[in-house]
Amino acid sequence: MKGITKVTIFILIVAFGFGAAYAQFAKPEDAIKYRKSVMFLIAQHFTRMYAVVQGKAPYDEDAFSVNAEIIKMLAILPWEASLVPGTDKGTTLKSSVFKNQEQFRKAAESFETAAAMLASTAKGGDLNAIKAQIGKVAQSCKACHKQFRNM
Amino acid sequence: MKGITKVTIFILIVAFGFGAAYAQFAKPEDAIKYRKSVMFLIAQHFTRMYAVVQGKAPYDEDAFSVNAEIIKMLAILPWEASLVPGTDKGTTLKSSVFKNQEQFRKAAESFETAAAMLASTAKGGDLNAIKAQIGKVAQSCKACHKQFRNM
Repeated sequence: MKGITKVTIFILIVAFGFGAAYAQFAKPEDAIKYRKSVMFLIAQHFTRMYAVVQGKAPYDEDAFSVNAEIIKMLAILPWEASLVPGTDKGTTLKSSVFKNQEQFRKAAESFETAAAMLASTAKGGDLNAIKAQIGKVAQSCKACHKQFRNM
Repeated sequence: MKGITKVTIFILIVAFGFGAAYAQFAKPEDAIKYRKSVMFLIAQHFTRMYAVVQGKAPYDEDAFSVNAEIIKMLAILPWEASLVPGTDKGTTLKSSVFKNQEQFRKAAESFETAAAMLASTAKGGDLNAIKAQIGKVAQSCKACHKQFRNM
């Protein structure tokens, strides 16, 4: 396999992840811990960026871009772990995710796309454009959480 | 900022991360949870690859490459969270990390380099070369853990 790119990785993860890849986890607890770990990391980096657009932290173009790139990378990871049967129990994952995998995939892709766009926008250094795009990322988070996460 | 690459991200993370970036964490518990999350994710993907080279799981070239790419991405993340003063308490982090930051940085870079090389090697599909390189990744893990982690 030559020239693997992040797009390829995404496609492969989707191909494996939304298929039978939950065999990847030795036990259901690992899948739960996996997705919680990814979501925690995403939240940490999102919070750093959000503080900037809210004016609570200074805007450093490079630091902002690093946070956006990291979220773009992490954005492809949480999904397969969210489709392991039975892992909704005792967690905030709605059981409807198992029946509505196509909708879940779309919601996940919406977040990935918004995050990738934010990483691109961040490189431009235009804080107004960044503010608009981070709003779209936040919307994609909320939309998916509303559908598939118990608050 | 144009053309940010993963190398650039690494440089920036090192620049911020090994400087005063621990101000990035709202509280010390977040830094601990952050690095534990990253290490858990790395371990999950490493285990999948290790099962293959041990002959306990079938070798799928694409799936293997995805795991290697993910570890390469994650490899740059855990270090700043490991340098937050006081976060050794109650964890396996050795307090010596704070005094020996230059050695820690070298050990971290050794892992990053080995992980990046594994991602490249994995694309070649040569299982013998992959076995040799995953051994180097494992060695870099062990070397850093021996120096900076209480077993």
